[in-house]
Amino acid sequence: MTDRGREWRLRALPRGALAAGDLELVELALPPLADGQVRLRVLRLPMDPAIRMTLASRGDYGAGVAVGAAVRGLVLGRVEASRSSALAVGDIVSGFGTWSDRLVADAAAFSRVALIPDLALSIHTHVLGTSGLAALHGLQDVAGLRPGDRVLVSAAAGGVGSLACQFARLLGASRVVGIAGGAGKCRIAVERYGCDACIDHRAAPDPQALEAALRSALPEGIDVGFENVGGAPLQAALALLRPGARIALCGMIAEYDAAAPAPGPANLWNLIVQRARIEGFRVAPLLADRARVDALLARIEGWLRAGALRYDIDERDGIEAVPQAFAALSSGRHRGRLVVRVAD
Amino acid sequence: MTDRGREWRLRALPRGALAAGDLELVELALPPLADGQVRLRVLRLPMDPAIRMTLASRGDYGAGVAVGAAVRGLVLGRVEASRSSALAVGDIVSGFGTWSDRLVADAAAFSRVALIPDLALSIHTHVLGTSGLAALHGLQDVAGLRPGDRVLVSAAAGGVGSLACQFARLLGASRVVGIAGGAGKCRIAVERYGCDACIDHRAAPDPQALEAALRSALPEGIDVGFENVGGAPLQAALALLRPGARIALCGMIAEYDAAAPAPGPANLWNLIVQRARIEGFRVAPLLADRARVDALLARIEGWLRAGALRYDIDERDGIEAVPQAFAALSSGRHRGRLVVRVAD
Repeated sequence: MTDRGREWRLRALPRGALAAGDLELVELALPPLADGQVRLRVLRLPMDPAIRMTLASRGDYGAGVAVGAAVRGLVLGRVEASRSSALAVGDIVSGFGTWSDRLVADAAAFSRVALIPDLALSIHTHVLGTSGLAALHGLQDVAGLRPGDRVLVSAAAGGVGSLACQFARLLGASRVVGIAGGAGKCRIAVERYGCDACIDHRAAPDPQALEAALRSALPEGIDVGFENVGGAPLQAALALLRPGARIALCGMIAEYDAAAPAPGPANLWNLIVQRARIEGFRVAPLLADRARVDALLARIEGWLRAGALRYDIDERDGIEAVPQAFAALSSGRHRGRLVVRVAD
Repeated sequence: MTDRGREWRLRALPRGALAAGDLELVELALPPLADGQVRLRVLRLPMDPAIRMTLASRGDYGAGVAVGAAVRGLVLGRVEASRSSALAVGDIVSGFGTWSDRLVADAAAFSRVALIPDLALSIHTHVLGTSGLAALHGLQDVAGLRPGDRVLVSAAAGGVGSLACQFARLLGASRVVGIAGGAGKCRIAVERYGCDACIDHRAAPDPQALEAALRSALPEGIDVGFENVGGAPLQAALALLRPGARIALCGMIAEYDAAAPAPGPANLWNLIVQRARIEGFRVAPLLADRARVDALLARIEGWLRAGALRYDIDERDGIEAVPQAFAALSSGRHRGRLVVRVAD
């Protein structure tokens, strides 16, 4: 049995939200290791909303997943066997793999994780993993946040958003305002993640109402937007641009379950008026730049050790929990980073 | 009579395209010069499509023009009287003023133009004026064009577009493709302004058809987009992005005559997939950076003197011609830069 594993395969292209019936858990014999490959015991599978976009023909995000193939996503694992000089048995590694409990892959797709004693393993999927990298890279490298900037973060109580709010403050933002879905998430964004204010987009009947609520929380507008949602929050961010503002486009959750692409914001004209920009980014290509990744993680670790960060990891047990865990992402029934614990 | 002038005032907010009845030509007594002011004889009034956006409550573009006030726009004029040490009587100057034949304004709003013997005066509204500045600033400073880049230019036979096509080539683009309205304009874009190909958006029944036509002309996609139109051309540009691509958003002609803002492109998601950006810009704020303006103009003048540029200036005579000239912009019945000749 040691050379067998299980993986979640795509049974049908989902319509709307990913449903349990769209996936099947398949047991398989793992192939023997080729030169340069490793076999991993999967420990944690973080659930990223954007995975939904690989399960459709909606643009070439990642490689795209064909029906019958394993769903791909971030993996935190332990090396069980290695034919690579880069990774040794027992190493804890992270990288893009499959939603599985054991897998064989090229060692080059993974990098070693420096564990921190006394901290939960899952932190390397969150604050010290891709959530933290997305938040800090987006604010620093993409949006070029400067001290004094006024910042708007959508999905402010989510995995990446909750960190973006706190990082923005630590980088010197003069005002940080969130957008979140529901009064409970807004309260958490303010009380726990340090937003000056948070606007409940569910309480806004239309984009104009959301814009008006944001304008009262940000009367001087925004220098930086950290956008996770698209749709009405993006249009509101565009309406609030100050001269030279930058929107880092990290995700578009509002789009992921749509049957067809929705029209975009009606106010891109404001990019011209304010000489502003929207710039998209992804973490996967960033991971190839180890020096930058290490610098970003070192900065985050410094804040973490100084006790400056609050974070939440919502763990679900067992590889069988993957479909329900992923569905919880879009329904919003989770808190912070959502991670499936496959093994310890 | 020497202290009297005429100016075009807004009589009513236009609905759809600016109509002659929306404006009125008013004769007025010019005020005496205050300290720091100059009186100008207006020589040329270039017609910029984006002026339409100042005649509506569609975002704070420029100062916005109230009903009853003079329409504001670029002016090329000669100093008739001066109470400023910066400008002397007889200087030829350009800057933002009113659609008028004589005007009194702060000298600081204008800068001296270095005339080039043997070239038409209007060239300082076009190749060596704001059209040239918009095209080169957009390609170099906003989009960061690099040798080898594949470039897409919309409104490729227009004033700014025709220069952007040629500048892109001179900056080392490996391929330059235009979008224009009508077979005639497309032919000019290829034969006169040097495009490798030009797609007629009027021949494309929908955005998908435009995208397909562009994809056959740009099978490897685009590194740089120079966007003058918005609407379907912008959506097509987004569909063709290569990794790290940059779209310089110079104008959105498709929007200017709309009664209400139209929905934006449905594929902003592609900004994330390709780690690409859209960045808006305007020439008015650039004019305050004299060093940059002088550097850009010096580069353009070098190309001009080397005989590397083709350009067209479409002149209409007399301040009375302003409404018809401006209307010709959106109907597309002009060639290159459209300028009203007010005096010589």
